[in-house]
Amino acid sequence: MPNDGYRRLTATKINACQGALEVLLNADDAREMALGSLDRVEVRAGDHSAIAIVNTTETMVGRGEIGLFCETWDRLAVGEGAAAEVVPMSRPNSVEHIRKKIAGGLLTESEIRELVRDIVSGRLSNREITAYTVAIQINDMTMEEIVHLTQAMVETGERITFTRQPVYDVHSIGGVPGNKYAPITVAIAAAAGLMVPKTSSRAISSACGTADFMEMVTNVVHTGDAIREIAERVGGTLVWGGGLNLAPADDIIIRAERPLSLDPHCQVLASVMAKKLATGVQRLLIDIPMGRGTKVEDEEGARRLARDFIELGRRLGVEVRCAITYGGQPIGHAIGPALEIREALGILEGSLHIGSIREKAIELAGALIEMDRLAPKGRGRIIAEEILDRGKALEKFREIIEAQGGDGSIKSTDIEPGRFTRDILSPRHGYVEGVHNHTLVRMARLAGAPRDKGAGLVLHRKEGQSIDEGDTLITVHADAEWKLEAAVGHATANWPVRIEGMILEEVIE
Amino acid sequence: MPNDGYRRLTATKINACQGALEVLLNADDAREMALGSLDRVEVRAGDHSAIAIVNTTETMVGRGEIGLFCETWDRLAVGEGAAAEVVPMSRPNSVEHIRKKIAGGLLTESEIRELVRDIVSGRLSNREITAYTVAIQINDMTMEEIVHLTQAMVETGERITFTRQPVYDVHSIGGVPGNKYAPITVAIAAAAGLMVPKTSSRAISSACGTADFMEMVTNVVHTGDAIREIAERVGGTLVWGGGLNLAPADDIIIRAERPLSLDPHCQVLASVMAKKLATGVQRLLIDIPMGRGTKVEDEEGARRLARDFIELGRRLGVEVRCAITYGGQPIGHAIGPALEIREALGILEGSLHIGSIREKAIELAGALIEMDRLAPKGRGRIIAEEILDRGKALEKFREIIEAQGGDGSIKSTDIEPGRFTRDILSPRHGYVEGVHNHTLVRMARLAGAPRDKGAGLVLHRKEGQSIDEGDTLITVHADAEWKLEAAVGHATANWPVRIEGMILEEVIE
Repeated sequence: MPNDGYRRLTATKINACQGALEVLLNADDAREMALGSLDRVEVRAGDHSAIAIVNTTETMVGRGEIGLFCETWDRLAVGEGAAAEVVPMSRPNSVEHIRKKIAGGLLTESEIRELVRDIVSGRLSNREITAYTVAIQINDMTMEEIVHLTQAMVETGERITFTRQPVYDVHSIGGVPGNKYAPITVAIAAAAGLMVPKTSSRAISSACGTADFMEMVTNVVHTGDAIREIAERVGGTLVWGGGLNLAPADDIIIRAERPLSLDPHCQVLASVMAKKLATGVQRLLIDIPMGRGTKVEDEEGARRLARDFIELGRRLGVEVRCAITYGGQPIGHAIGPALEIREALGILEGSLHIGSIREKAIELAGALIEMDRLAPKGRGRIIAEEILDRGKALEKFREIIEAQGGDGSIKSTDIEPGRFTRDILSPRHGYVEGVHNHTLVRMARLAGAPRDKGAGLVLHRKEGQSIDEGDTLITVHADAEWKLEAAVGHATANWPVRIEGMILEEVIE
Repeated sequence: MPNDGYRRLTATKINACQGALEVLLNADDAREMALGSLDRVEVRAGDHSAIAIVNTTETMVGRGEIGLFCETWDRLAVGEGAAAEVVPMSRPNSVEHIRKKIAGGLLTESEIRELVRDIVSGRLSNREITAYTVAIQINDMTMEEIVHLTQAMVETGERITFTRQPVYDVHSIGGVPGNKYAPITVAIAAAAGLMVPKTSSRAISSACGTADFMEMVTNVVHTGDAIREIAERVGGTLVWGGGLNLAPADDIIIRAERPLSLDPHCQVLASVMAKKLATGVQRLLIDIPMGRGTKVEDEEGARRLARDFIELGRRLGVEVRCAITYGGQPIGHAIGPALEIREALGILEGSLHIGSIREKAIELAGALIEMDRLAPKGRGRIIAEEILDRGKALEKFREIIEAQGGDGSIKSTDIEPGRFTRDILSPRHGYVEGVHNHTLVRMARLAGAPRDKGAGLVLHRKEGQSIDEGDTLITVHADAEWKLEAAVGHATANWPVRIEGMILEEVIE
């Protein structure tokens, strides 16, 4: 730690957040301290200190001042005009670890731990984290490194410990719209006697996450203690995991991956497993949707991911089973919060008979049931279907809803999708040959999903089904008229469905 | 181009620059438009439009407003409160080209052209440009791609065209402090009858660039027309190239490389050659300093770079010669603007006899002279030394200074280094075994270089020389006392010189 170049400056708040610990110095002050943009300083104020990344400005901050962006302001807990001591710092070692990965090297356990700690603490800039994601996208990691990465991600966050054991979970790596299997699968498995404390995410770039539609019928925000209590009592939860600070490095790394749509193999493995280890999961079923427009486009990639998940689980003491599922088109027909929970409830009630989602949920529940050593091998699917068809899953789902603070008597017909609707008609007679996931997701988002709960769409025909000219192909729902127009406009410009070999429009994103 | 999600917002200026075309949207507006941070929008205002990158804020910009960062504000040329139409845009194709490079693919000529155009126009975010630099650092480029990259970098900037031909130039790839060969080499070559319109840079991370010390004795800021006129009349220039907009992609890419100290082989080649092609150079000598603490640490790397420079030149019609020089310690003794120009002038006057810098400047001038087909082969060095020793180089240097607007009668003794000085003494008797470039550069910068012209240091003993206990090893100069203390403090904490096998401190940066 060099102690030269020390300055005393006056703190001033900058009303913006950077996603990292950053400060803003007047360019003249920075030059005098031999500091450039993206260099680092230690800032001490009162009893607090922070290592922060320097930005420079000619105008926004005067000489002798230091602007603190929201994260740094909160960390230092100072008041406007407080004195702040500023000392130039050398780069954190973790930048060298990123350089090592760029150069094709292997990272040691302590290097990975330091890197993850610096990502979580905000010591690394956005550019540096982006560089890390590109480096691992290209150079990947060995299984040994992935084990250490997973452990480091768990260690830098909160954990939930269950008394009742074993802890089961089911997780989809995502990428396919309408994938509303979770309430059905969890309800079936819990009704079969397993404990499945499922935590879910909200949509980031997708149209609707499990937490987005579950909050239509119950409270999804709970503390770790509450989740433990509910799961141990009723056998399952369907809550939002985002507020629990489980493996928080994951969210930061995902933000860095997004601009380039990166999806590094090693990071996918570590992120999923870290979130699960943080909730003490011992038996884990992973759904790997495969197909055009999903994260895993071919069978070779899906098999490799499955093998690696199983191996990673083995090394970390988690029994993993993987299901490769078809993700080339939406699961079921509905996309968007109200529409998805309505469809899931319909399946649980037995009032809806949609093959793709019903079959998927049953298969996954069956696989979970077979992970129970007391369950007869090869009979999981049959048990799961029986539980669903006899209404035991609906009963269990209502228990979970009530335990989380919702009204267990809710029915699918109580759910009201957005009141502004428009039917998109088929321009010709033929068979549906292809469905474009990305375009449907974009339409649902333009319609207002996931924030507007009523927004979304229903896809009336799926691959292989026939349709007549003028029949309704898609119904769009929105809570506001102009959003409905935006979604319909997008569909018109980028047809999301290909009918019988006649390419209406091939969309490449 | 999707035409959905259109909004009319009110423009407001954000008093900060981002280095890219960026805007700030209220988070609620962004969500309604299905936009997230780092998504792109087209903004139209009056007769202007720009594709800009979205940032979101909860507080800094209200609903219905759009904050324009300085680059976007300037591009749109609107006034505060003007109406701005905002339309969500898909990612530019160049992001796909970066993804292709990450995936190990080869980029076509048109892909590279699109990428460079988007870098220069500010269409790509900092994260995306960082991802590009990491991708090429790891996956490199073929010679074919480098040719296209070079051409694209030239096309996206200004050019200078000379009537007098051929155009010579000499360029160092840098990385070694005190490398003040340029005024001496250019003066010798111009005195020998060559035309060497040298453009130089200011220091970015180094202690002092050629432009930084040249502006102690003359004006270094000139237009392209003025440079042509001066070079064609007196045979050479020593000006700052940074204001000329030659291959401007280079500066943007360098900024992205800096946080991780990346130095992608293909980008080094393309950047150097693009700047030279932009000034119409036909015969180019490249100095490749090699050694610990420089950009090229071993002979294999230096030879590879040399071969590739020669091949790239061949494909682009530039005759290239490379000199691999020793860069493991400073060239000469002085580091910092006043100290460096004083040393260079001393060599030109014949009043100083410092082997390392005198020899290097003569060798490089000799190599340039031998590139003239009329010059006798193998005699360049002798001709160069004669020109220097007979005062012809000094005379030519004075002509160049005057042509650029300076006082040609200046003498080395007129130059005054910083008045605050401190001698750092050797703690023991022994031989200098190693000199740490990075630590010396950091000391000079803490002393105030390159901005404070008097700041810097003189290294009195170099590798292989002996020193007694208590003798002066380094003299530090500064224009302000507290900066002197900072530089001395850094030296004390990180000894920059190793004496006779006893490691005072091994510094790893």
